[in-house]
Amino acid sequence: MKSAAYLGQGRLETRSEPETPPAEGQIQIAVAYCGLCGTDLHIVHGDMDARVRTPLVFGHEVSGTVAAVGAGVEGWSVGDPVTVMPLVWDGTCAACRAGHHHICQNLDFLGIDSPGGLQERWNVPASVAVPLPAGLDLRTAALVEPVSVAVHDVRRSELTDGDRVVVLGGGPIGVLIAMVARAAGAHVLLAEIDGTRRERADGLGFETVDPSSVDLEAEVGRWTDGVGADVVFEVSGAAAAARSTTALARVRGTIVVVAIHSAAREIDLHRVFWRELRLLGARVYERSDVERAIELLHQGAIPATAIISAVVPLDQVGPAMDDLSSGRSMKVLVDVAGKETA
Amino acid sequence: MKSAAYLGQGRLETRSEPETPPAEGQIQIAVAYCGLCGTDLHIVHGDMDARVRTPLVFGHEVSGTVAAVGAGVEGWSVGDPVTVMPLVWDGTCAACRAGHHHICQNLDFLGIDSPGGLQERWNVPASVAVPLPAGLDLRTAALVEPVSVAVHDVRRSELTDGDRVVVLGGGPIGVLIAMVARAAGAHVLLAEIDGTRRERADGLGFETVDPSSVDLEAEVGRWTDGVGADVVFEVSGAAAAARSTTALARVRGTIVVVAIHSAAREIDLHRVFWRELRLLGARVYERSDVERAIELLHQGAIPATAIISAVVPLDQVGPAMDDLSSGRSMKVLVDVAGKETA
Repeated sequence: MKSAAYLGQGRLETRSEPETPPAEGQIQIAVAYCGLCGTDLHIVHGDMDARVRTPLVFGHEVSGTVAAVGAGVEGWSVGDPVTVMPLVWDGTCAACRAGHHHICQNLDFLGIDSPGGLQERWNVPASVAVPLPAGLDLRTAALVEPVSVAVHDVRRSELTDGDRVVVLGGGPIGVLIAMVARAAGAHVLLAEIDGTRRERADGLGFETVDPSSVDLEAEVGRWTDGVGADVVFEVSGAAAAARSTTALARVRGTIVVVAIHSAAREIDLHRVFWRELRLLGARVYERSDVERAIELLHQGAIPATAIISAVVPLDQVGPAMDDLSSGRSMKVLVDVAGKETA
Repeated sequence: MKSAAYLGQGRLETRSEPETPPAEGQIQIAVAYCGLCGTDLHIVHGDMDARVRTPLVFGHEVSGTVAAVGAGVEGWSVGDPVTVMPLVWDGTCAACRAGHHHICQNLDFLGIDSPGGLQERWNVPASVAVPLPAGLDLRTAALVEPVSVAVHDVRRSELTDGDRVVVLGGGPIGVLIAMVARAAGAHVLLAEIDGTRRERADGLGFETVDPSSVDLEAEVGRWTDGVGADVVFEVSGAAAAARSTTALARVRGTIVVVAIHSAAREIDLHRVFWRELRLLGARVYERSDVERAIELLHQGAIPATAIISAVVPLDQVGPAMDDLSSGRSMKVLVDVAGKETA
C-alpha cells in the first residue's frame, strides 16, 4: 500500500509498504480522503522535530470505509463509512480524571505522535472511529476534523443566537469558526490582513475588515452600536491581534484563544478587570463536537465545496504543502484511494 | 458636622460643615465607622486627580444607622442599622441593559465620583442602602464592602468545596478572598513577598509561601500532587505574578484577575490554549454579594477582629493613610461618630 511520510529535516516521501491486518481492538480503514492542515505544515517544516518520531505517516483529517475489523471489536462492519477523532488518551492523568480526556496530559494525537491517515490502509483503535451517516459523501466527510475544532471553539464560547462575533484571522479554522458561529445564529465580522483570504471570506457572505488599514476597535464599535463584541475568537496567532482582543469585547464578553501563540503576549488585564471579561483557551474537540460537526456537514450548514480548494493524489503531497504554505489554498484534500486523481 | 476631604495635590483636611437634610429619595446615615482602603490611598496620593472633583469627602466602607428619611423613601426608619453598596448606575448603558449594573459604563462610585462616608451625616440614595441584621456590631459591619469584593471574586471563580486555591498577594483583599474561599470549603495557599503580611496570614491559619524565594510553580505542583490549582486569584498587581498565573492553574483551571494592573502584562496564551484555562476579570460586587458578605460577617466566618488593625478618629485620617501606605496596617477603621476615640 502507498503512504506519505515525513522523514525529518524537511523531507517528504511517498512510499510503498506491505499492509498489516488490524490488531485486536483495531479497525482497518480504507482511507478515501485526508485533509492537510497547518499542523501538518509545521511537521513537514521541521518545527515539530522534537516531538515526532520519523519516518512519520502524518495526516489526521480522514474519511474512508472500514476495510477490516480486528478481534474483539463490535459495532463495525466492512464497508461502513467512517471518520476518525484522532485522540488517544491515557485515562489516568489529572485532565482525564477530571473528565477532560480530549486534553489528556499524555495525549497521543494520531498523525503526530503515532502514524496518521496518509496511507491507503490505516489501522486505528476502534475507540477513535466515528461512524458517518449514509448519504454524507466522503470528500465532505474529510472536513469533519477541522469542523470539529470550530464546533469546539464555538461551544466553548457559549455564544447564542443573535450574538455579534469577531473572528481574528481568516485561515481555514477562522473561516470554519465563522461558519459554525453563523450556523448558530451569530453575526460574524472577520478580520484578516491578507486580501486573498478576505476576498474568499467575502465570497462566503461574511463581513470582512482589514485590521492593518482600519482602526479595528472603532470598526467593531460601530458594528456593535458601541457595545463591543459578544465573542472574539483569536485565530491569527499574531501579537497585535492578541493585544486587541480585550478592546473589542463587550462588558462580560468572551475571548476564545484558538491560535497557537509562540511567545507570551501582552494582554490588557486592566480591561479584563474593568469589563469583567472572560478569556478561554480552546483546544481540539470532544466526541460531542465531532458528532455535531458531522451533523452540520450532513445538513449542508457548512458548505464543503466552498472550503475544499483542491484535491491532489498521494504523490503530490509535497507540492500541495508548498501551496498551503503560501496561504493561497484553503483546504487541500489528498485523494488517498486514488479514485479521483489516479 | 465633621468630615474628612481630599483637597487635591495630595492634601487632606478635616473640616466642619453644616449638615443638609436628605433630599427626596435619600436617606441620611449617621456614619459610625468608615474603613480606609487602597483606592482611598490612590485618591489621597493624587493618582486619581483626573477622575475626582475636589474637595472630595471620600470613603466608601461604611456602617451606621439611619438618621433621617427623605420624602418618598419607604422601608427605612430612623435608627435602623445600615451599610452602603456605594454604586449608582445609569441603568441605560450597554452593561446595565445586559444586567451588569455593578459595572455600569457610567458608574457613579460614591466616595470616588460623589461624596463618600467620611462625614458624620451622609445623604445617599435609598437604593444604595443595605439593611444590617440586629446583632451585627457596627465595627464589623464596616467590613461589609471589602468582604463583598472578596465574595464577588470567589463567586466569579465558581470554586467548589475541596478546591485548591492559590491567592497571589496578601494585602487586605487577598486575605479576605482567602477567608471567603476557605469559608466555601477551599484549601488556600497564599503567596506574598512581604514577611509581615505572610506572618499575619500564617496567624490566620493559612499556608503561605514567599514567591521571591521559592519556585512557586514547583511549590503549587507539590501542594496539588502535580495537578495544579483549581483557582488562582491574582490580587498583587505585579507583572511577575500575572505572568505566573497560567503556570499554576490545572487543566481547565480558573484565573481571576482582581488586582489593578497599570500596564499590559505578558500572558502565556499557549498555556491558556493548551490547558483550556479560563481567565476572568472580577470588579466590585453585586447586591447578592453584599448580602452574602453580611451573612459571613454575622456568622463569624470572617473574623473581623483579626482584620481590623486600628480604629482612629476622623482627625487622624492623614496619619492612618501614611500607615496604610507602608503596608503594615491591615484594615484601619475611622471612628466617624467619635464614640470610641473622641
